[in-house]
Amino acid sequence: MRTVKVGIAGAAGFSGLELFSMLVRHPHVEIVFITSEQHAGRPISDFIVAQKGGFDPVFEPLDPASQSVKAECVFFALPAESSLEAGPGFVHDSVVIDLSAAYRLSDPVEYKKWYKHEHTATEILPSAVYGLTEWNRDSVRTASLIANPGCYPTSVLIPMLPLMARGYCSNDTVIVDSKSGVSGMGRKVTPEATFMQISNNFRAYGVGTHRHTPEIAQELALAASFATPVIFTPHLLPIERGILSTIYFKSAKTAEECRAHLAHFYEGEPFVRVLDNGLPEIAHVAHTNLCVCTVVPSGIPGTLIAVSTIDNLVKGAAGQAIQNMNVRFGFPEETALV
Amino acid sequence: MRTVKVGIAGAAGFSGLELFSMLVRHPHVEIVFITSEQHAGRPISDFIVAQKGGFDPVFEPLDPASQSVKAECVFFALPAESSLEAGPGFVHDSVVIDLSAAYRLSDPVEYKKWYKHEHTATEILPSAVYGLTEWNRDSVRTASLIANPGCYPTSVLIPMLPLMARGYCSNDTVIVDSKSGVSGMGRKVTPEATFMQISNNFRAYGVGTHRHTPEIAQELALAASFATPVIFTPHLLPIERGILSTIYFKSAKTAEECRAHLAHFYEGEPFVRVLDNGLPEIAHVAHTNLCVCTVVPSGIPGTLIAVSTIDNLVKGAAGQAIQNMNVRFGFPEETALV
Amino acid sequence: MRTVKVGIAGAAGFSGLELFSMLVRHPHVEIVFITSEQHAGRPISDFIVAQKGGFDPVFEPLDPASQSVKAECVFFALPAESSLEAGPGFVHDSVVIDLSAAYRLSDPVEYKKWYKHEHTATEILPSAVYGLTEWNRDSVRTASLIANPGCYPTSVLIPMLPLMARGYCSNDTVIVDSKSGVSGMGRKVTPEATFMQISNNFRAYGVGTHRHTPEIAQELALAASFATPVIFTPHLLPIERGILSTIYFKSAKTAEECRAHLAHFYEGEPFVRVLDNGLPEIAHVAHTNLCVCTVVPSGIPGTLIAVSTIDNLVKGAAGQAIQNMNVRFGFPEETALV
Amino acid sequence: MRTVKVGIAGAAGFSGLELFSMLVRHPHVEIVFITSEQHAGRPISDFIVAQKGGFDPVFEPLDPASQSVKAECVFFALPAESSLEAGPGFVHDSVVIDLSAAYRLSDPVEYKKWYKHEHTATEILPSAVYGLTEWNRDSVRTASLIANPGCYPTSVLIPMLPLMARGYCSNDTVIVDSKSGVSGMGRKVTPEATFMQISNNFRAYGVGTHRHTPEIAQELALAASFATPVIFTPHLLPIERGILSTIYFKSAKTAEECRAHLAHFYEGEPFVRVLDNGLPEIAHVAHTNLCVCTVVPSGIPGTLIAVSTIDNLVKGAAGQAIQNMNVRFGFPEETALV
Repeated sequence: MRTVKVGIAGAAGFSGLELFSMLVRHPHVEIVFITSEQHAGRPISDFIVAQKGGFDPVFEPLDPASQSVKAECVFFALPAESSLEAGPGFVHDSVVIDLSAAYRLSDPVEYKKWYKHEHTATEILPSAVYGLTEWNRDSVRTASLIANPGCYPTSVLIPMLPLMARGYCSNDTVIVDSKSGVSGMGRKVTPEATFMQISNNFRAYGVGTHRHTPEIAQELALAASFATPVIFTPHLLPIERGILSTIYFKSAKTAEECRAHLAHFYEGEPFVRVLDNGLPEIAHVAHTNLCVCTVVPSGIPGTLIAVSTIDNLVKGAAGQAIQNMNVRFGFPEETALV
Repeated sequence: MRTVKVGIAGAAGFSGLELFSMLVRHPHVEIVFITSEQHAGRPISDFIVAQKGGFDPVFEPLDPASQSVKAECVFFALPAESSLEAGPGFVHDSVVIDLSAAYRLSDPVEYKKWYKHEHTATEILPSAVYGLTEWNRDSVRTASLIANPGCYPTSVLIPMLPLMARGYCSNDTVIVDSKSGVSGMGRKVTPEATFMQISNNFRAYGVGTHRHTPEIAQELALAASFATPVIFTPHLLPIERGILSTIYFKSAKTAEECRAHLAHFYEGEPFVRVLDNGLPEIAHVAHTNLCVCTVVPSGIPGTLIAVSTIDNLVKGAAGQAIQNMNVRFGFPEETALV
Repeated sequence: MRTVKVGIAGAAGFSGLELFSMLVRHPHVEIVFITSEQHAGRPISDFIVAQKGGFDPVFEPLDPASQSVKAECVFFALPAESSLEAGPGFVHDSVVIDLSAAYRLSDPVEYKKWYKHEHTATEILPSAVYGLTEWNRDSVRTASLIANPGCYPTSVLIPMLPLMARGYCSNDTVIVDSKSGVSGMGRKVTPEATFMQISNNFRAYGVGTHRHTPEIAQELALAASFATPVIFTPHLLPIERGILSTIYFKSAKTAEECRAHLAHFYEGEPFVRVLDNGLPEIAHVAHTNLCVCTVVPSGIPGTLIAVSTIDNLVKGAAGQAIQNMNVRFGFPEETALV
Repeated sequence: MRTVKVGIAGAAGFSGLELFSMLVRHPHVEIVFITSEQHAGRPISDFIVAQKGGFDPVFEPLDPASQSVKAECVFFALPAESSLEAGPGFVHDSVVIDLSAAYRLSDPVEYKKWYKHEHTATEILPSAVYGLTEWNRDSVRTASLIANPGCYPTSVLIPMLPLMARGYCSNDTVIVDSKSGVSGMGRKVTPEATFMQISNNFRAYGVGTHRHTPEIAQELALAASFATPVIFTPHLLPIERGILSTIYFKSAKTAEECRAHLAHFYEGEPFVRVLDNGLPEIAHVAHTNLCVCTVVPSGIPGTLIAVSTIDNLVKGAAGQAIQNMNVRFGFPEETALV
């Protein structure tokens, strides 16, 4: 099988480093550049000691003109605004897999409303494919711009899209109560990111205002062919990685029927496990590309509870990005992911 | 001020030890016995090193006949079944403050349904006062049997009862998504209680079936004068202590109106803080008898979110028990609690 | 008993906040000012939610001229350089209890060597009393400037000083391998202080160069009347508070003899526990003013191991400072500390 | 390259599960049986959710007679006594890689002294090769019984053996102060293993008596050709995995000379990194087969400090076992390990 030359833009963030660590193990990938404005000139072994003395590339500044011709596939592990800027310069020469939110919302007006800046790359936005692999695999196969889903949305959409699509979930409000590990905050050094603020603590944040809300709503509406109100409440867990979402929805079906439908829908999928009994735990998925999920009764007739868990850095970011790359370039989908 | 002689039945569990630690600092309390079947004969300094060389009583087996005449006030930090057994033997001589669920539900049929055993002390059950101090202070003042509220219910009822009572919450389903530290599991040594199962992990448990559900529903219904369906989903946080509950409810009011009502209702209360801005965090309340809470918009009109936090071992157990003792015996309510 | 007016300079750091939280519970203390340059104008309830709606003073900038006449006792929870600057302005009007290293080393040349700046308050340095309460209680009683010991040195000196003084420890090198919780780093917001760098991690730091080394050596030498080489290796534990020191020393005595001597020496001391069997754990002392320690055989004849633990924020900082204040002002030594 | 059939005896412990997880990714391995007495009949997916729906073998009871003919290579992740029992039954048909201590000490008298039971397999003990791969690679290549090193000894011996062998470390007492994550305790469900006992805590254990002491001493003496007294103090870190050892030794060399010697000695080794500057952290090695180490000055002439870190479940157990298997069966040494 041939080798693909890849670049990682923004390789010094948590997702970027996870991508690097996973891609060096990929037998059909050659990493040809890694970028970081802040750390340009430093070797990656400053962040991943294992690379010391081995393959140890140096961060370069981002430069679409020169870099787009070097790599067939470029991962953007950048802030959304940087992805907007860089996208047009890469997308004609390289397959772009963007881990930011820049190309996830199809409506630039909605984008501006939630992200508080103009969508400056609307010329390429329509070509973007929403890269929830299990759901959009066929479109991913030929995409030149893949919008890798957000971490929270991935945890929600895997159980909910098949239920929405089949009418197993009513168009009443869906309530998503999510809990995420700290790596989801990114690498910014703020008082909120210190050990003393996070250890032994737990809190909600961005209640009613988190930017992943419209992304979840957009995909649920697409699957259901009707709009469903979404309430999304993220919380911060005192652990490094992992998301668990507890999802309350109205349904005329039983939990058992929903589980059976999900089990059937995901049969043969390498990265989704639907539990018949027991409940998902973050420990089931940490350091893997799995989503583990189920549906259980709420105790109140007519309302069901889906519980779903992923590793936010793997299936919620780097892992799903590589899964999309594997699909796009014709490699076995599980390569470098198990 | 006079001194009250107190006993602690079940002093070797987490709540019992917290009670002991707090009561030795109470200037008007003399601890006259502590019980533990499992650890009878051992000194409390085996559990609390600070007591070594100082006040270091030895655990005795529980014996209502001899112990009830020694103590004016007895705390039960026992399993519910043991509280049922011991209650009648103590309640005529001593004020009983029961930290178990034995006397919280007024209906013994409902009790049996959720706790899977008969209520064997129905003769004293009607005399029990539900000891959510801020709500039932007047009844606590004269009670001989105080049912100290459950930890989860305390976190939910403090924000929700005033809203229910005033019609700020509709009779539509209330969804309670709660997260608790590990001490809430009690001291049983099981695989689920090991560090390796809990660290870096997070999970839901008892979904649709947790025994605190009817307790929450009973008190909401009493306050509202109508029954409200309650969905209650507890989760296990990888921390030692603290509960945070995220509560979704339908309301014709704004979040601001709800906050204002709560702030007014709890004005002057020593142990409740209603936040005007910002969100409660477990770190705000750890090792204190406080409940910190607020109400915020959900992003979807007609649904609001209350967020509330307590220390499960203090306001959710030992602290509220001492608060009730202070009220019952006429001590300043904050004694030994700040 | 009369009330002492106290001020806290640098009240927004971890030690300062711990001091505030403990002093508001002290029945004979009135807090008359709290200072913070960075947070001047903000109320303390921004940091300690419990104070909201109650005693909620506002941080002021440090101003010795006006503040020294307000308070009989001033705690410095400042960086060493600020303590050097502020000391002379306060010490004539107030008793100063300094939690920094500014007045711990008696030799200003040694001070400069380790702290890399001049000692600018040498006129008051000779009056400073090293406030290891159990060791220097009589001097503390009349001191106007109390140098509160460092956290690591406190953990080491409590077991070692009586051994050194009595010849139970040879003048061969003493090796101190210490492990501290994160609060010991202070509140600086750096990459090293983030949850992602500390959680699931452990490391040594400042090996061979940590500033507490000469403090330990100075006090050991004073007790022994001869100089003893000290190797001190601090490590960073992924927990919030607590220090445990493992101390290797040469001795002609048995571990049992050393334990017996320590037990005798500390008999009746409210805050020291010498274990006869078992080993100290940080959980024994967290949130207390205790030092728990012991001496055990190393397995190699002639070398013994002392193990000692304190809470770095309490006995290692705020608690010992209040203990010193209690001694200095004639209050019962345990006031506000149990 | 051909495929080796392997078995895992004791696959339900932490090391056994880690072995399984790593071996399923090994391209030249087929797992033909896994054993567990306690969990016989259950599928491995009860422990590793990822295997559900895929390769999901069922635990069998240990049965050397039938199993030894099925597998060319058998890993023992058993208690030492079980390894003693099982060894003779497997070793003639299969290559045995034993992760227990059963075959590490060459002297059965010493074994009995530390392990408190007879060495019942002395007939095969002389054939055992101590599998510290970097040190004994040539012997491993042809061994039929490989004694995989203990976790603590691995962390100590990698930096110390080359120093001992070359005279860079005197024959004075070597003091090893080690700190390990909780997985090192194994899967026993005891009060000491509960989250509530370990979280926010830290303690020493087995001081002067830990069974890894003679293993360290044996290998140091072999390398140095003289006996060196070893003091070994293990501590329990509140994290899941990782060991960091701080090692104090007397030397006539400088730290720089020692580092240079180690760097030279380990040049080209895939799993050892000698740091030129900075200090090893557990985060450098977690979930890898690396040992990261260095030597630094102690501040006291004549004494140096080596700091060394490994993942106790990988390089300290399963990873090194696979490394040995790779060497033994002629696979590239890094296979399934990066």
